[in-house]
Amino acid sequence: MYDQSNVFAKILRGEIPAFKVYEDQRSLSFMDAMPQSDGHTLVIPKVEARNFFDIAPDALADLIKATQYVAKGVQQAFKPDGMRIIQFNEPAAGQTVFHIHFHIVPCYEGQSIRGHGRDWADKAVLAEHAEKIRAALATLPPR
Amino acid sequence: MYDQSNVFAKILRGEIPAFKVYEDQRSLSFMDAMPQSDGHTLVIPKVEARNFFDIAPDALADLIKATQYVAKGVQQAFKPDGMRIIQFNEPAAGQTVFHIHFHIVPCYEGQSIRGHGRDWADKAVLAEHAEKIRAALATLPPR
Repeated sequence: MYDQSNVFAKILRGEIPAFKVYEDQRSLSFMDAMPQSDGHTLVIPKVEARNFFDIAPDALADLIKATQYVAKGVQQAFKPDGMRIIQFNEPAAGQTVFHIHFHIVPCYEGQSIRGHGRDWADKAVLAEHAEKIRAALATLPPR
Repeated sequence: MYDQSNVFAKILRGEIPAFKVYEDQRSLSFMDAMPQSDGHTLVIPKVEARNFFDIAPDALADLIKATQYVAKGVQQAFKPDGMRIIQFNEPAAGQTVFHIHFHIVPCYEGQSIRGHGRDWADKAVLAEHAEKIRAALATLPPR
């Protein structure tokens, strides 16, 4: 069941701000406000879907393509040693916002990633990271 | 760079066995041999791709659709309280087999998931779990 009062629905409606890195007709990407590592970015679809199970397969397919595109920008911007692509369903799995989203989590050698949804990042840092990713995406071929 | 000697390439070539739950022309799904929770299943494409960055967008799109389909079977078979969909890139992120794969990790209330790639599961249990998922998938509409 989809609840239109979730935070990402509010971001999509422009009711609350986000540090956006990419947007097209079907998806939006922005910095995770409680990042697990530097460059932690989210990608969400514009369709209403709670999770991995209720999103239409074609919308999911488009969402993962957008995620791949943004991940390439994050990779180029932050040059992490590895990257996790993660999607949580329901509280038992760690889902905290009930609008489906993929996490792009850069991993750096010798640094463990921080807990999920734990600490708010400095907004100036998020703004700077978003700009860095947008700049990297601008150098990639369009999706 | 894709190394054809990786374990999943061997499974695709039929050189080593796996507890398969689903297969079509473009993807294969089987039980993780070192499961993080009961029902932990993997989905891989039949194309040669090391990770999230070098797989063609259309192949990735098909892979996530196959992952969604299998996840619905896992959900029905195991009725977990939540589910994680996870994809690791490079050793720093936890990737241990260098053929792109999505993890379907069921989460159960009050049980933390086990470490990644740590303990080998009992083969009789994996066989039983695979059968349970195949039976659940048989009740779903085909993808």
